[in-house]
Amino acid sequence: MTKQLGIALMGTGRMAHVYGPKISAHPGLSLEVVYNPRRSSAETAAAQYGGRPVDDLDQMLADPRVDAVVIATPTDTHVDYILRVAQAGKPIYCEKPLDQTLARVDQALAALKETPVPFMLGFNRRFDPDNAALRAAVRAGEIGRVTMLMSWSREPAPPPIAYVRASGGYFVDATIHDIDLLCWIAGERPVEVQAAGSCMFDPEIGAEGDFDLTMTTLKMPSGALVHINNSRYCSYGFDQRLEALGDRGMLQTENHRDDPLVRWDGTRTVARAPLKHFFLERYDQSFYNALDEFHAAVTSGRAPSATAEDGRAALAIALACARSAKEGRAVAPDYG
Amino acid sequence: MTKQLGIALMGTGRMAHVYGPKISAHPGLSLEVVYNPRRSSAETAAAQYGGRPVDDLDQMLADPRVDAVVIATPTDTHVDYILRVAQAGKPIYCEKPLDQTLARVDQALAALKETPVPFMLGFNRRFDPDNAALRAAVRAGEIGRVTMLMSWSREPAPPPIAYVRASGGYFVDATIHDIDLLCWIAGERPVEVQAAGSCMFDPEIGAEGDFDLTMTTLKMPSGALVHINNSRYCSYGFDQRLEALGDRGMLQTENHRDDPLVRWDGTRTVARAPLKHFFLERYDQSFYNALDEFHAAVTSGRAPSATAEDGRAALAIALACARSAKEGRAVAPDYG
Amino acid sequence: MTKQLGIALMGTGRMAHVYGPKISAHPGLSLEVVYNPRRSSAETAAAQYGGRPVDDLDQMLADPRVDAVVIATPTDTHVDYILRVAQAGKPIYCEKPLDQTLARVDQALAALKETPVPFMLGFNRRFDPDNAALRAAVRAGEIGRVTMLMSWSREPAPPPIAYVRASGGYFVDATIHDIDLLCWIAGERPVEVQAAGSCMFDPEIGAEGDFDLTMTTLKMPSGALVHINNSRYCSYGFDQRLEALGDRGMLQTENHRDDPLVRWDGTRTVARAPLKHFFLERYDQSFYNALDEFHAAVTSGRAPSATAEDGRAALAIALACARSAKEGRAVAPDYG
Amino acid sequence: MTKQLGIALMGTGRMAHVYGPKISAHPGLSLEVVYNPRRSSAETAAAQYGGRPVDDLDQMLADPRVDAVVIATPTDTHVDYILRVAQAGKPIYCEKPLDQTLARVDQALAALKETPVPFMLGFNRRFDPDNAALRAAVRAGEIGRVTMLMSWSREPAPPPIAYVRASGGYFVDATIHDIDLLCWIAGERPVEVQAAGSCMFDPEIGAEGDFDLTMTTLKMPSGALVHINNSRYCSYGFDQRLEALGDRGMLQTENHRDDPLVRWDGTRTVARAPLKHFFLERYDQSFYNALDEFHAAVTSGRAPSATAEDGRAALAIALACARSAKEGRAVAPDYG
Repeated sequence: MTKQLGIALMGTGRMAHVYGPKISAHPGLSLEVVYNPRRSSAETAAAQYGGRPVDDLDQMLADPRVDAVVIATPTDTHVDYILRVAQAGKPIYCEKPLDQTLARVDQALAALKETPVPFMLGFNRRFDPDNAALRAAVRAGEIGRVTMLMSWSREPAPPPIAYVRASGGYFVDATIHDIDLLCWIAGERPVEVQAAGSCMFDPEIGAEGDFDLTMTTLKMPSGALVHINNSRYCSYGFDQRLEALGDRGMLQTENHRDDPLVRWDGTRTVARAPLKHFFLERYDQSFYNALDEFHAAVTSGRAPSATAEDGRAALAIALACARSAKEGRAVAPDYG
Repeated sequence: MTKQLGIALMGTGRMAHVYGPKISAHPGLSLEVVYNPRRSSAETAAAQYGGRPVDDLDQMLADPRVDAVVIATPTDTHVDYILRVAQAGKPIYCEKPLDQTLARVDQALAALKETPVPFMLGFNRRFDPDNAALRAAVRAGEIGRVTMLMSWSREPAPPPIAYVRASGGYFVDATIHDIDLLCWIAGERPVEVQAAGSCMFDPEIGAEGDFDLTMTTLKMPSGALVHINNSRYCSYGFDQRLEALGDRGMLQTENHRDDPLVRWDGTRTVARAPLKHFFLERYDQSFYNALDEFHAAVTSGRAPSATAEDGRAALAIALACARSAKEGRAVAPDYG
Repeated sequence: MTKQLGIALMGTGRMAHVYGPKISAHPGLSLEVVYNPRRSSAETAAAQYGGRPVDDLDQMLADPRVDAVVIATPTDTHVDYILRVAQAGKPIYCEKPLDQTLARVDQALAALKETPVPFMLGFNRRFDPDNAALRAAVRAGEIGRVTMLMSWSREPAPPPIAYVRASGGYFVDATIHDIDLLCWIAGERPVEVQAAGSCMFDPEIGAEGDFDLTMTTLKMPSGALVHINNSRYCSYGFDQRLEALGDRGMLQTENHRDDPLVRWDGTRTVARAPLKHFFLERYDQSFYNALDEFHAAVTSGRAPSATAEDGRAALAIALACARSAKEGRAVAPDYG
Repeated sequence: MTKQLGIALMGTGRMAHVYGPKISAHPGLSLEVVYNPRRSSAETAAAQYGGRPVDDLDQMLADPRVDAVVIATPTDTHVDYILRVAQAGKPIYCEKPLDQTLARVDQALAALKETPVPFMLGFNRRFDPDNAALRAAVRAGEIGRVTMLMSWSREPAPPPIAYVRASGGYFVDATIHDIDLLCWIAGERPVEVQAAGSCMFDPEIGAEGDFDLTMTTLKMPSGALVHINNSRYCSYGFDQRLEALGDRGMLQTENHRDDPLVRWDGTRTVARAPLKHFFLERYDQSFYNALDEFHAAVTSGRAPSATAEDGRAALAIALACARSAKEGRAVAPDYG
């Protein structure tokens, strides 16, 4: 019924742990290969999710059972792998971001232009049912013309400093999610951004010249204004909310919780269960839905809905935010 | 602007403590006399709220500055005082209930028929703005024909056993509030009641043959069904809610809290402030509004909206509930 | 990984339409046979969900690929089929109710005692994640000792009168769900019930001596009181709520909606999406979860968690409610 | 009990209509004089709220029954009247803003330094019970160290263009409220601001070089970040919300509605009553409470809590926002 797609999963780290079980669970995908240049890592992961362990890229690309590739390797390897897989003519699902620099991203875009294969970037939050419902309502005209969009993304705790150092900075690492989501909902991209950041939780982050607390404003061509706030620390869990204001109404999404019960007790009434802890718990379904979109697009011959160009634009905006926060002025993103 | 009404407040106990300050605060009422047969009590109370202390009933009734009387004495003295004040021709506001027996209530009704004075019974919950808004919406036809009504009334902690012994039983003491409120909203009175009770909190209450936990069903002439649940103990405070179902929609009131903030913290998110502790806090405004209704009715010459007949009917229903709970059968209230 | 269980689905009506697709979707179940004595109905259904159409019961029972049977036929055939399938030694999942009479149910219980096969009754609401979360919290002691339980079950519109006539009456047809759910949560069964009913929506239902509006009170051995309200009509959709009060707190479940957005507009703010229309939409997941419980129990050799005895008890309570509503007195259920 | 303060109310326009009835209703204030240089206006207003009509400033200031003055005249007259009243040695309550220019404000500050009289600026939103509860919880340390503050202020409809022209611009006219409120909650003032504006509702406003839609970011000395969004149009009413994030939790206030009922109906369930229409309705209580603070401060001899310096600071920040929005760069407020 659902056309089967043989998948090679590249990478065996945190994001590969997210995709591995979801590929196995999807009725239209079959996990054929788990790739890591280090054979022992490939073997461990293959034992967990299924698939054959492979440490040789050429062998993986030559395998006729591999119909498509999911790239979940470290960010700085994405572009190289994209070049290789595109040359082999296989459809690509690549975890975001494409890269931390526009120059490298442009290399990937050029390669995909030269040897076009179906390509999808893993902006998984678009595939969260709540976010998608909000966008659908906006697109259906429920709130009329959009005038303000807002996004909250506050994380339960700062990542290790090694992660921060390799992350490209808070805007490129995290705000980029909100940027892509809000541009996708708005149907337009900012002409100018303003951003402010500070460091209030982890002095090590500040010592790197990075922020753990930011506020961002995007000015859209239509006149709509967009606000994003990000925090590397949030005592009550992973706070993820959207608000969309239009001239006919307003829409909001709400946080997800460990259970749906309303609790009344002696101290704080009404009380609710804690928020879903972090992105693995909160966006669990969205990763599955993103793979489902990839499957549906590839098997039906249409282009996947989150493109490499979307990735380039989001990166350009995030880099403009970082510059705005450093230089204290409005910055126009470099859309190339 | 607001016509001034000189008030004699009878009683210096818990309910008099509720009314005293509210009479003083009302711009159309002036507290002239505080009455208690024990002079020292009258003096203490008068020092608190204002007014002259009086221990002689004839003197109080003869005082030309007393235009109306608020009876807030022990329940078993209500009828006797009503007879005396009615004979003196002064308007009466009497704290509920009229009495715990239909025979005594009928005596008061007869006296009020013989020497008619404006009379209002202190069913204060009718004058709570939330309850009144729900009734107004029902009466405006917002939910169409009423089919179900529900009331929650759960108290923070059982009263002292001495109070319970003198209370006339849980149905007559407490359920009577819900009964009056729901009949007033429905615009009709039950043809039959069913009630069940148990004792789960205070064995002393059970030893008196009384209940600290009850559920009551009223069958209305229209076919509408009414549910009331009462508990003498509630760990999260004074739980007071209404629900009205009709064939075009449903309405609910919500509990009141110590402050309106929405709180998010590390354990239970979202959380709210504690409920208002008990009836003095939750219905503070309703007592004032009830006095305001009394003032408005007396000064304008119309009948107050909560009548002695309403009090008799509510008592008849409460007594029917008590009998139903004891005898395990549906009981028709004795409406006389 | 998940042990495969070959299933014969008996019946091709409304409930079979619920189970057919879910059996097909479950990775541990394989739909082998669709049975209906009318061959054309079996063929139509098999074409929809998969499986082979069979019109001969002996053939179905002899089929070695049939490891277990799901009975989703008209209620009055349940017991006969149970007898036949039990004799054939196959595990049974039977849609509720077992039957409308205690005598017939006792026949089924006797047969299951004589030829014991794994048996599960389809009380699907136990397997709804929200209801299960509430029970789990109660069982974990979150609210201490349970003192009150409440259930709302209001349906969007009355069924056709033919359905009503065959239903065994509103208590046996519908209230039985709430009864089973609340007894399962409470961990005890009532010693006495009181019920009241009226007919306000469909005079044809009243002409049958049945109700379209009921309120039920159950008295539990522990002293806990239980309230259930049912309505055959509800203008705002399928209203399904639970409330559990204990001496340490209170828990509530909330209704499910078509989407999770919070909407603000010019007339009614805040507004929410409509409720899930009816049981197919609201309890979609619970039917799947019930089959999953059946699969897990049968393949692991433990008894399924919703038993035939549970079905008998719920029927005895529902019949007692019906009698109480007719006779206007408290009735003790006949637990046999 | 409450010391009586004779009040001269200056002005008979929109804001005087707000203060007049509240002065009359306050038990510690007595409205002695209503001042307007146009005698007929003074007479009309005096007939409405009480007090004697006066059109001569010297006569008003010489009146021994005038203990204090409430200035509710057009903004561009505030400073001149402050100079005159201060010279006369009378306590002043002045509606915000002091003036639209820092130079004129500094004149008033100098005069108040030379002839010190008790002075209070009408930042009424500080005296809203919800806003005050949020600040109290913040100050009590409930959320630990403050890291983010957010304010929503969206108005139901744009004012007439004549009002806009005289308003000093959207930041000075409206954002100034949010600025004062958030600085008061934070206990600090921004070192730098970023603002963005656009015009999406009323082209006439854009033609004036003004905005009807703005987003503002304040950078606080502590590192905390502050977001304010303002809209001159809001289809669902007067949207007024606050959010405070700290390292131990988060607090929110909610909008106020016409009634507290929860409504369930056939289209949008749950639904709530419309929001309070505009500031007169939403902040009705806060104006009264502000006068109460003025009364309490003046009669007890302590300084009122909203000072002329607060007004100067808020204006400096609002002017910096306006410049930031025009010039596309971060701007440091001129605190003098």
